[in-house]
Amino acid sequence: MNKKLLVEFIGTFFLCFITNMSLYGPRPEYTPFVSGLMLIGLVYASGHLSGAHFNPAVTIAVFLRGRISLNSVPLYILSQLLAAGMASFICILLCGNKTIPIIEISNLTLEAILAEFFGVFVIVYVFLNVATSKNTMGNDFYGISYGLTLTACMLALNQISGAAFNPAVSISFSVVKIASFSNLWIYWLGEISGACLAALVFLFLNGKN
Amino acid sequence: MNKKLLVEFIGTFFLCFITNMSLYGPRPEYTPFVSGLMLIGLVYASGHLSGAHFNPAVTIAVFLRGRISLNSVPLYILSQLLAAGMASFICILLCGNKTIPIIEISNLTLEAILAEFFGVFVIVYVFLNVATSKNTMGNDFYGISYGLTLTACMLALNQISGAAFNPAVSISFSVVKIASFSNLWIYWLGEISGACLAALVFLFLNGKN
Amino acid sequence: MNKKLLVEFIGTFFLCFITNMSLYGPRPEYTPFVSGLMLIGLVYASGHLSGAHFNPAVTIAVFLRGRISLNSVPLYILSQLLAAGMASFICILLCGNKTIPIIEISNLTLEAILAEFFGVFVIVYVFLNVATSKNTMGNDFYGISYGLTLTACMLALNQISGAAFNPAVSISFSVVKIASFSNLWIYWLGEISGACLAALVFLFLNGKN
Amino acid sequence: MNKKLLVEFIGTFFLCFITNMSLYGPRPEYTPFVSGLMLIGLVYASGHLSGAHFNPAVTIAVFLRGRISLNSVPLYILSQLLAAGMASFICILLCGNKTIPIIEISNLTLEAILAEFFGVFVIVYVFLNVATSKNTMGNDFYGISYGLTLTACMLALNQISGAAFNPAVSISFSVVKIASFSNLWIYWLGEISGACLAALVFLFLNGKN
Repeated sequence: MNKKLLVEFIGTFFLCFITNMSLYGPRPEYTPFVSGLMLIGLVYASGHLSGAHFNPAVTIAVFLRGRISLNSVPLYILSQLLAAGMASFICILLCGNKTIPIIEISNLTLEAILAEFFGVFVIVYVFLNVATSKNTMGNDFYGISYGLTLTACMLALNQISGAAFNPAVSISFSVVKIASFSNLWIYWLGEISGACLAALVFLFLNGKN
Repeated sequence: MNKKLLVEFIGTFFLCFITNMSLYGPRPEYTPFVSGLMLIGLVYASGHLSGAHFNPAVTIAVFLRGRISLNSVPLYILSQLLAAGMASFICILLCGNKTIPIIEISNLTLEAILAEFFGVFVIVYVFLNVATSKNTMGNDFYGISYGLTLTACMLALNQISGAAFNPAVSISFSVVKIASFSNLWIYWLGEISGACLAALVFLFLNGKN
Repeated sequence: MNKKLLVEFIGTFFLCFITNMSLYGPRPEYTPFVSGLMLIGLVYASGHLSGAHFNPAVTIAVFLRGRISLNSVPLYILSQLLAAGMASFICILLCGNKTIPIIEISNLTLEAILAEFFGVFVIVYVFLNVATSKNTMGNDFYGISYGLTLTACMLALNQISGAAFNPAVSISFSVVKIASFSNLWIYWLGEISGACLAALVFLFLNGKN
Repeated sequence: MNKKLLVEFIGTFFLCFITNMSLYGPRPEYTPFVSGLMLIGLVYASGHLSGAHFNPAVTIAVFLRGRISLNSVPLYILSQLLAAGMASFICILLCGNKTIPIIEISNLTLEAILAEFFGVFVIVYVFLNVATSKNTMGNDFYGISYGLTLTACMLALNQISGAAFNPAVSISFSVVKIASFSNLWIYWLGEISGACLAALVFLFLNGKN
């Protein structure tokens, strides 16, 4: 178990680190590609070790789908959140004097919840169907699918919510001050509900195979 | 069958939703990447469930190629069109007060028909050869091929017709007012004829294997 | 054989058509992505039918490597050149009144020959090693490798020669007046010599396995 | 062995050549895509011949992981550095009169070491886990993972260090005067230490299987 938690830590750390560094940089508009392509590499490196979630919403959905034990869930999520925090502090260390674009969602609460809900729903729906369905076993495209779906959703929806789609990334946005801590509930509500619905739809479509 | 229709609904919904949201956003020029990458994720998530068409023109071509029954065709298409409509309404809900670029094809009718015809021809030609030819069975690249061909055609041809290449996407363009309903026949004529010719060429090249 | 020639015609037609349409459009700087992603789709659609060359320089290299008969070479090349010509005429039909960026290489003859030489060398080196080496049989990544290598070389070298890397594409550049017919020998010299050297290096490294 | 060294020479040559040519060109901001996509093609072309390192830091890590003999290490590295030098001279021959963006890291020594350290750590961590773990044998995604991880890290971190992540690329940056020779130790220190830590983490996670 310790090794799995280290793998989740490393993966989530680099997903948050690279995403935030790109937002600090001269081409923040390329960030959806940065995050998605980084995720592809990390997923193929980690799938055989930890399942390659790197996202508390995915961990909850994989639990509902019956592929991870209840005991493991809080440990996975704790690793992911710690990694997000540490990644954010290193970003501040490297770029603390630079400005970073701020996401203002206070006047768009419902829209932001919906954007996070729809984004996480489709990301988790794709992840569960490609990575955990018995009918696609042997299909090695789960990393490509997970990463490119993230890129597409970030490109289309970051105008609304900043496109975290991941409670760990949402926390890192708050630490580096892209988003405010007081709006964290908006992200988490949309993300957790999207992940739960995707798990239920998966079970309806595939059965608990 | 009900599950297949739900899968087609979900896939077409997210294809239209993400495409239109990107057109409403600050970087509409990235939309070809958004649509193609989203399609890759959706196809790998859905291929084992419904065949992953998400496009009435593809459904018609798969019928001509002999891989879906005549009874299923109208149900598939109805699911896809309903999904396109619902996706468009949610886009309006989220972005209704934003402006969206308008495609003006009234003076370019023949050019637009040809652009849609060539785009759908090559998309369906690639889809049928990679996903349904006995000689490429076991080749799991059908999702990559379908999505990246869509991206390439959208990048090259959206200057002419707006690059729908999909009767469901064409309807969603009309609902969100990117294109006008009175031009819908232009899209459908090019799209359906391109799909039919691609199916005939496929059968000539591969036989009904 | 007739079917193989039709497949080469369709593939080369769409490669040239989509490339030139993108150069006519509002974002010519995306053309390297357009060409490479289109090639990926076409290669996976056609590999089981014709070998998916779409490029006379590749056909010559595959002949030197011993995977296509001498009789087939002129027929393959003729199909490819006819396809390039027809694609160019349809581009002019659709966009003839638009301006297209002109590649001026008259003062850079040696540089252009070298750019085409190096680009074709690495494209053919990658193609032969991934698609035709016995040691990578079963490796289905030949389409991805061929297309993305093309994209990378076009992005890096189009400042020098316009980045055709393909005698058929070079002809289509001349027809749509991106480049002049009098410079065609510059392209062909660099392209054919790069392809021949790549085939020799492949045979040295792998043997005629 | 001679053939392996030639393969490493060709791969590293084209990685450096294409990267530097892109930096000389009109769109240096696309360079991370150029380098990563070129790497994907080269890796699939060369994996069966040399292991496809193209990077002295990767060679050192593969040695620590136990997949290359001590005798081969200096020969691999020498090939890679010679290739980087020759590629740089050809870039200067083709573009010597153009200006190239200069990376100024003198005031950011610690930040640059950290950026190179984190980038190389994750690149090597992904490479070792996907390409050399017994548990992912048969997973052919090592080329995609290696290349796209490079693209993501270059996009996110080139604002800090110029994003070499490769001692051979660092040398080529010095030759074409993107970076100064007196800063070469900054790159090499970050790169070698990142590669060594990644190898140790890999061995802890996977054992010497």
